[in-house]
Amino acid sequence: MPGGPLMIIGGAEDKLRRRRILKEFVALSGGPDARIAVIPTASSLGPEVVEVYDALFRAEGAAEVHTVRPESREEAGDEELVEQLGKATGVFMTGGNQLKLSSIVCGTPVGDAIVAAHERGACVGGTSAGASIQSSHMLAFGVGGSTPKQRMTQMAAGLGLVPGTVIDQHFEQRNRYGRLLMIVAQSPQLLGMGVDEDTAALVQDGVLSVIGRGAVTLLDPSSITTNAFEARRSAPLLASGVVLHVLPEGARFDLATRTLLPYGVEVDPTEAAEMEEAGRDLRQMARDIAASDASPSVLRRRLKRTRKKKAGADETTDGDHA
Amino acid sequence: MPGGPLMIIGGAEDKLRRRRILKEFVALSGGPDARIAVIPTASSLGPEVVEVYDALFRAEGAAEVHTVRPESREEAGDEELVEQLGKATGVFMTGGNQLKLSSIVCGTPVGDAIVAAHERGACVGGTSAGASIQSSHMLAFGVGGSTPKQRMTQMAAGLGLVPGTVIDQHFEQRNRYGRLLMIVAQSPQLLGMGVDEDTAALVQDGVLSVIGRGAVTLLDPSSITTNAFEARRSAPLLASGVVLHVLPEGARFDLATRTLLPYGVEVDPTEAAEMEEAGRDLRQMARDIAASDASPSVLRRRLKRTRKKKAGADETTDGDHA
Repeated sequence: MPGGPLMIIGGAEDKLRRRRILKEFVALSGGPDARIAVIPTASSLGPEVVEVYDALFRAEGAAEVHTVRPESREEAGDEELVEQLGKATGVFMTGGNQLKLSSIVCGTPVGDAIVAAHERGACVGGTSAGASIQSSHMLAFGVGGSTPKQRMTQMAAGLGLVPGTVIDQHFEQRNRYGRLLMIVAQSPQLLGMGVDEDTAALVQDGVLSVIGRGAVTLLDPSSITTNAFEARRSAPLLASGVVLHVLPEGARFDLATRTLLPYGVEVDPTEAAEMEEAGRDLRQMARDIAASDASPSVLRRRLKRTRKKKAGADETTDGDHA
Repeated sequence: MPGGPLMIIGGAEDKLRRRRILKEFVALSGGPDARIAVIPTASSLGPEVVEVYDALFRAEGAAEVHTVRPESREEAGDEELVEQLGKATGVFMTGGNQLKLSSIVCGTPVGDAIVAAHERGACVGGTSAGASIQSSHMLAFGVGGSTPKQRMTQMAAGLGLVPGTVIDQHFEQRNRYGRLLMIVAQSPQLLGMGVDEDTAALVQDGVLSVIGRGAVTLLDPSSITTNAFEARRSAPLLASGVVLHVLPEGARFDLATRTLLPYGVEVDPTEAAEMEEAGRDLRQMARDIAASDASPSVLRRRLKRTRKKKAGADETTDGDHA
């Protein structure tokens, strides 16, 4: 299942300062060639929500931004809207009420056109409600709290762009460990994904990577022991053996094997050069010790001389450039 | 390391209604023979905090309740206080400021007497601050939040009654996943234990069991991959592969092997009798089907007759008792 990139944003993405996430969305949608369809159906706000994203995506260099706003299932059959989605290189779903979004869009020509856009390689993204609806199983409404209990939230069917996954958003800010644990305890074939605000899970070719200020928390219940089928309403659920992954920006996770991919640490170039020099010095010291004619104090003096010489050479080089 | 039972209470234990946890503490301290020493050093309240626990423990049938309240390290050398602890069958530490408790008590004769009481088999319990101090590594101060970041809390040394463990309390109510994850990411040889309010982790003979309204959450970082040694202050920490156990009342957990023990479900006796009868009926039906002379409808009629006969017999029995 290849398809285009999916951008699952935990809500409250930065719109005024660096706009890391929205910038990336435009880039993944084709940059200067991007034709973005904004779907604000989840929102109860008026045209202003569209105006904001329209201004943002244009400011980031998108060629075209169009609004696709069905407000009923009937409107979600509108040919013109479907056509807009058919030409889009990026589809963006705003926040709001995800049950409003799913009940109007899922299983309609507009819903099918979003799935088709993903399948032909367009970038599909969404924030908050627009994040939730991308999973196969979608959370809607509920309460906060760390400890899982029955009926903390309810599940509805989403668009299924991320299969076998249940997505929750505003994860850290609204303390949603409990409700996501409840869901994966009851449906241990699902992977639970909690996305913090101003943070995005980017899913592409089966690999999840993280952009933004917060973290993406994954709950893998494959080996869970649970009493979710018999626990009383008010009692906490047993959920033993859930594997937890808290992934900050830069982390990459293989969704098929459910394992962290090698975590690359970005190294500053100046620091890298210093490390390289320190390494050369140590190798020289090791050779000298092996030759064993020199005491440590002799070695230190020799090292100092070498460094001074090197510094002199660097100055000359700098002079050439000046 | 045998020692007496340890009762780690997450704060705000029920004092007015069923008093499940405090009742259990008195029972484990010897019931009618209990001589309980209350240590309110963590608290900034006056004698009233002692009066409450004094009244509670006496109401639950304890023989004696004494106050051991050092307010300085000097007072924590007082022979009379040490003697009280020497005779105690139960030691209870109240809530308050755990750094005040640890800095006054740890490494003093009173601190040693608490450890000695545990070693000779007395029950040692505590709530909130009095829970934290029982671990080898103790959290103090900090902020809430689900996502782990640097310096969300700090660690000090506790009494070490629960070795290799770091305890946090008010876990669900104050959203403390983040800070406990931070601690175990930095010290992956420790087991993280978060105890909800009105909930106790009872540790005895290396087995943890749970009493109360909430859950005990364990974070086992043995297989963690983390960047805790290099993550920037404001960035979330990578914490991949932490094994999570949420344990409600009735759950039992082996602390040495870090595995859940078989989870016994309590069955209502009436329900058990009904299940037994349904089992007999099904076995009879299986035999009848194997004999294959009867159609399902014949079997159903026969089953109905048997049940009616049995109901009649029950009524007779009831009559005998009336």
